[in-house]
Amino acid sequence: MSHGKQFTLYTCQPGGPNGWKVAIVLEELGLTYESIYLDLKNGESRSPEHTKYNPNGRIPTLIDHKNNEFVIWESNAIILYLISKYDPEHKISVTTEGDKFQLTQWLFFQASGQGPYYGQASWFVYSHPEKIESAKERYMNETLRILGVLESVLSKQEWLVGGKATVADLSFITWNQAALIIVLPNKEGFDFHKDFPAVFAWHAKLEARDSVKKIAAVRAAFQR
Amino acid sequence: MSHGKQFTLYTCQPGGPNGWKVAIVLEELGLTYESIYLDLKNGESRSPEHTKYNPNGRIPTLIDHKNNEFVIWESNAIILYLISKYDPEHKISVTTEGDKFQLTQWLFFQASGQGPYYGQASWFVYSHPEKIESAKERYMNETLRILGVLESVLSKQEWLVGGKATVADLSFITWNQAALIIVLPNKEGFDFHKDFPAVFAWHAKLEARDSVKKIAAVRAAFQR
Repeated sequence: MSHGKQFTLYTCQPGGPNGWKVAIVLEELGLTYESIYLDLKNGESRSPEHTKYNPNGRIPTLIDHKNNEFVIWESNAIILYLISKYDPEHKISVTTEGDKFQLTQWLFFQASGQGPYYGQASWFVYSHPEKIESAKERYMNETLRILGVLESVLSKQEWLVGGKATVADLSFITWNQAALIIVLPNKEGFDFHKDFPAVFAWHAKLEARDSVKKIAAVRAAFQR
Repeated sequence: MSHGKQFTLYTCQPGGPNGWKVAIVLEELGLTYESIYLDLKNGESRSPEHTKYNPNGRIPTLIDHKNNEFVIWESNAIILYLISKYDPEHKISVTTEGDKFQLTQWLFFQASGQGPYYGQASWFVYSHPEKIESAKERYMNETLRILGVLESVLSKQEWLVGGKATVADLSFITWNQAALIIVLPNKEGFDFHKDFPAVFAWHAKLEARDSVKKIAAVRAAFQR
């Protein structure tokens, strides 16, 4: 590593919620990192230079140059690594054993529920070679279902776990941003504020954080 | 809990790979559990009796009656809970810090890659109201892609992490079984043994374990 920063983050721009999710956590913890933006359309994430670190050939991948060049991939595994090693004051993590397991539980719900379903909704709206209304409808409805699960919890408590903002909450931001911008406008009658008021308020509070605003500005610069 | 066992496992039968995945880990660790089989088609997993424990309304959900009725859902979060608390001799878990993070990484790959894509493949082959070849093709190809990622690793090492069979490996069994039985026969020319020899050998070794054979017998009894 010639860039002198602690981490190298393999990611992509301007889309790709999972890479930005990790960047937000790195910003929250004040860690230094160099982002390498792979061109996914040109297959750079599947090139040997990347798959030697990450056999899945997807972003993000993180290398920790201050921990013997430790390599880890899967965005939420990266997040658990970062809080375990670099959040000793529990700024965005929790302290009790029970809360730690519940934080992990929410990360798995994000990774197996929110990410894949929102991703498929986006695929059938924007990328699939033919227009298939029933597939679009399936994944739009799944997206609303996920928002409904979050609403059922956040209507009773301010944060997902531990009574404060943690990586459990932060992990949902970038995919919710993606859904609000590109997916849900295609769902007739959808009104985020009215339909999911607790999720709306929670998402707004997360978006107001310095880390999230900084990453939003970095992304916006790519789109100019 | 009147059943006298340590855990209550909310699951379903005979399908539902994620519930059986947890059952296999409980068997590996010699833990006692009572399975409550919810009827998913009748919406039992979305009933208040279940969502009071699991707001996602899906299986599995685990209650630990020997840990102050601790409740946890998301199958791989459950698995991390079980090895953390009940595998002190590391029968199916790892010991070094680096291996623990990599084990978690593989669990996230299983949860965000294998499960959702195989699940969508199954959906478009068996459950979607119209037949859509391009959607079937998309998810069949993703299923093969996931097997290819595993092949690229398992052709160079016997197990995913730590040099031995762990929950990282075990977490893939039930979805691979589902894919081999119901999805991949619909993919022309597919030959598991020839196309993915290392995955084939790995899967066979896992299927030969007592825990996996016991659960296979329980499942088979439901199908009689």
